[in-house]
Amino acid sequence: MSASNAEDIARTSKAAFEASQLISSSDRVEALHAIVEELKAKRAQVLAANKEDLEAAQIEVDAGRMSKSLLARLDLGSGDKWDSMLQGVLDVAALPDPTGAVTYATELDDGLDLYKVSCPIGVLLLIFEARPEVIVNIAALAIKSGNAAILKGGKESSRSAKLLSEAISAALAKTSLPSTYIQTIQTRAEVSSLLSMDQYIDLVIPRGSKELVRSIQHNTRIPVMGHADGLCSIYLDESADLEKAKRVVVDAKTNYPSACNAVETLIVHEALVNTVWPEVARALLAANVELFCDLHTLSALSSLPNPPENLQALVKLSEPSTYDIEHISLTLSVIALPSLQSAIKFINQHGSGHTDAIITESDPAAASFCRGVASSSTFVNASTRFADGFRYGFGTEVGISTGRIHARGPVGLEGLVIYKYIMRSRDNAGHIVGEFGTGKKEYKHKRFEATYVPF
Amino acid sequence: MSASNAEDIARTSKAAFEASQLISSSDRVEALHAIVEELKAKRAQVLAANKEDLEAAQIEVDAGRMSKSLLARLDLGSGDKWDSMLQGVLDVAALPDPTGAVTYATELDDGLDLYKVSCPIGVLLLIFEARPEVIVNIAALAIKSGNAAILKGGKESSRSAKLLSEAISAALAKTSLPSTYIQTIQTRAEVSSLLSMDQYIDLVIPRGSKELVRSIQHNTRIPVMGHADGLCSIYLDESADLEKAKRVVVDAKTNYPSACNAVETLIVHEALVNTVWPEVARALLAANVELFCDLHTLSALSSLPNPPENLQALVKLSEPSTYDIEHISLTLSVIALPSLQSAIKFINQHGSGHTDAIITESDPAAASFCRGVASSSTFVNASTRFADGFRYGFGTEVGISTGRIHARGPVGLEGLVIYKYIMRSRDNAGHIVGEFGTGKKEYKHKRFEATYVPF
Repeated sequence: MSASNAEDIARTSKAAFEASQLISSSDRVEALHAIVEELKAKRAQVLAANKEDLEAAQIEVDAGRMSKSLLARLDLGSGDKWDSMLQGVLDVAALPDPTGAVTYATELDDGLDLYKVSCPIGVLLLIFEARPEVIVNIAALAIKSGNAAILKGGKESSRSAKLLSEAISAALAKTSLPSTYIQTIQTRAEVSSLLSMDQYIDLVIPRGSKELVRSIQHNTRIPVMGHADGLCSIYLDESADLEKAKRVVVDAKTNYPSACNAVETLIVHEALVNTVWPEVARALLAANVELFCDLHTLSALSSLPNPPENLQALVKLSEPSTYDIEHISLTLSVIALPSLQSAIKFINQHGSGHTDAIITESDPAAASFCRGVASSSTFVNASTRFADGFRYGFGTEVGISTGRIHARGPVGLEGLVIYKYIMRSRDNAGHIVGEFGTGKKEYKHKRFEATYVPF
Repeated sequence: MSASNAEDIARTSKAAFEASQLISSSDRVEALHAIVEELKAKRAQVLAANKEDLEAAQIEVDAGRMSKSLLARLDLGSGDKWDSMLQGVLDVAALPDPTGAVTYATELDDGLDLYKVSCPIGVLLLIFEARPEVIVNIAALAIKSGNAAILKGGKESSRSAKLLSEAISAALAKTSLPSTYIQTIQTRAEVSSLLSMDQYIDLVIPRGSKELVRSIQHNTRIPVMGHADGLCSIYLDESADLEKAKRVVVDAKTNYPSACNAVETLIVHEALVNTVWPEVARALLAANVELFCDLHTLSALSSLPNPPENLQALVKLSEPSTYDIEHISLTLSVIALPSLQSAIKFINQHGSGHTDAIITESDPAAASFCRGVASSSTFVNASTRFADGFRYGFGTEVGISTGRIHARGPVGLEGLVIYKYIMRSRDNAGHIVGEFGTGKKEYKHKRFEATYVPF
C-alpha cells in the first residue's frame, strides 16, 4: 500500500474520530457487545485463518527462524484463549466510562461556570507483535475510551488479524459508530508513512520488543506512550531484613523472568556483602539464577562455607556494561555500593525508569529511595513484579509507560483520555472579559462540586 | 558555545534535578524567597543592564527593524513592572505544593498499599522571546514544581537576562538547591543542540511567535507543550440571541486583538445571515473591525439600509485561504454555514484547537458543539478571551497548550508535574507475586483515602 493510501487511512480515521464525538458512551458500549456477537458468529472462520498462520509459523520454527514460544503465543484456539478474548471485551465494556467526568468546576462569575471534563485523545496508532488477540483487546480499549484507532499487528499473525479486523468492522457497521473507527494496516511501509502524519495521529502506542519500540520512538514526532526497556533494580538497604530480601529478590527474578517488570540488577549495600548477600545468593542459586557480580560481591561468595554445587557454574564476574543489560532470563547483575545515595544515583543512571524496589526496615531510607529514584514505580519491600495494570487495580492495561509526561507506569484506560475545558454562561447577556479588571468586576473563582456538565 | 558545552548544561541540569528530589518542598519555597531578596539587592545593576538592552533596541526601532511594542515589552523599569515581577515570585511561592499529593490509594493485600503521587517531570527547556521578566516568572514556576530548568530568552533582552539569571544562581547558591538547578543559555545554536538531547531533557515549553513554536515542534523528539496558533472561532447558532452575539463577538475581537485567545473567524448559521448577522456586523464596524466575508455574508451587508460609513472600506471578500489565517489584529474572517454539524467540522478543520465558542439559546446545540469541537476550550455564550490560566483560577499560567496529551488549554502548575506510583509493604515477610493467582491469594483492590504517603 502506498503512502497516499496510508494518508487516506489516517484522514478517514481522524474524520471517524470527529464524527464519533457526538455519539454517546452507551452507544460505544453497545458497539463492544456487537463485536463480541460478531466474533462468536465468525469463530470458525477466524480459527481457520489462525490455523494457516500457525502452519506457516511451524515452517519457520522447523527452519529455526522462529521460537517455539512465539508460535505458542500465535495460537488463538488453545485452552480458553478464545473465550478469554471475548470476556476481555465484555470486561472493558463494563468498566466505568472514562470520558465525560468533571474533575474541576469553578464559578468565575455569577452565571459563568467552568468545567474540566475528561475526553478522548483522538486517533491512536497501535503497533504490536505476535499475539493476534491483542487486536481485539486494543480495539475494545480504544472504543471504550472514545478514540479512533489504526492497528498494526505482527506479520506472523496477519491472516488471523485480517479476519479479526474484518469482524470488528462488520460489527461497527451495524452500530452508530463509523465502520472506519477501527482500521487495520498490514505493512511496515504503512507504519512508516503514518508515523510522519502528526496532523492526523495524536498518540502512538507500541507494544513489543525493545527494538520495535525504540525504532518507533526514534522515527516520529507524534507522542509515543510505552517502554522500550524494563531494567528494574532492587536495592538491599543497610537495614534490609534477610528473609524479606530473599523472598522478594527470588520472586522478582524467577516468577516470570521474561517480563518487563522482572528484576535485572541487585544492588547490595556494602555493609551487607558478607552477611545478607551470601544468603540471598544461596537462594538465587537454588533457583538456578546466573549471577554476574562485581569483584566485591563475587569475593564474598568465593569464601562461602558449604558452597552450593552450581556456584562455580553460575557465578561470574560482571563488566561495566553488564549493568545496562535487560537480561529477560534467569540472570541477575549484582553490585555492591556504599550508600543509599549512591544506589539512587546508580538506578537513575542505569535503570530504565520502569520499576525499582528497596528492601529496608527504615522509613526514612524508604522515603528517600521513593523520592530519589525517578522511576514510574518505586516499591518498598515488595517484588518489582507487582508493576502491572491488573495488579494495580485498573481493570485493564493499555501498557506500561516509562515516559515523563501524560501517563506513567502501568496505564489503564485513563491513559487514553485527556481533558478539555467547557465554559458556560447562564447570564442573560452572555459573558465578556471587558467587564472585568481594575475598578470593574472581579473573578469569583468559587469551586463547586460537579460530576458531569449539566447539558 | 559548542554542542559539547550544551551537553554539559543538559547533564548538569539532570544531575541537579535528581539531587533536588531529596530536598523538601519548603526548601524550594525558601529558595523563591531568597531569589526575591537577591533581586531586591541587585535592582540597580539589573535595571542598568536593562537600560543597555533598551538603548540597543531603540537603534533597531529607529532603523525600522523592531516594533515599538516590542521595545515597550523590554522595559523592566516602566510602571510597576519590577514590583509585579517580585510579587509574582511571592505569589507562586504561596501556591499549594503541586508535588507529593496522593490522587489514588488502594490496598492490594493486607499490608500492601499502592499510592499514586504527584511529582516533578524532570528537566524543562523553556524558550521564550522578548520580555525579560519571564525568566524570573518561569524560574519560579520550575522551582515551585520541583523541576530543574534551562532557560533561553530573546536576544533583545540578553543583557537583562544575564543579570537576572546571575541573581537567580546567586540566590540558589545560598539555599539547599543546587545552583545549577536553573541555568540560562544565550544562543540559538545551544537551543538547537539541546533539542536533540532527549536523554536529559524531558519537556520543552516554547512561548513566543508561531514561527518560534513551530520551528521547535518540528525539530525535536522531546515532548513540546505550547501552541503555535490561536485560531479561535465563534459560531452563531440558529438560536443565537442577538445581544449576546454582539457583545461576545465584539469583546472577543476587540478586547485585545493580538492575544492568542482573540476570535479570528465568525461562523454564521445561514438562517441568521439576513437577521442577526447584519446587526453583529454593524457592531463590529462601529469598533473599526475589518471583515473578510464569504459571498453570502457579504451580500447581506451590501443591501443594508443606513449602511455604516466605513462599510465600503472595511468589508472585503474572503478567499478560501482566509479561514486559515490568525489575523492578530482588528480583522475578522466571516463565513455562513448551513448547520451546527458543518460548523463543528469547519472548526475542527480550520481551527487550531485553542478556544472556540457557540452563541446559542439551545442546550442540545451547546452540548453538541462542546463535544464535537475537539479544541482544548469550548465556550457557550462567553468570549474566547476568557481562555487564560488566571481567569480559570489557576493562580498562575505556564502557557496555553493545544496538544492532545498531558495538559491542554491554559496550563497551571499541574502541567509541570506528573505522577509516580509508590508501593509499600507493611507485611513482616515482604510481598511477592508468587503468592497470588488461581488457588492462592486474591488481590483486594480496596480503595482508601490518603492525601500523602505516610513516610
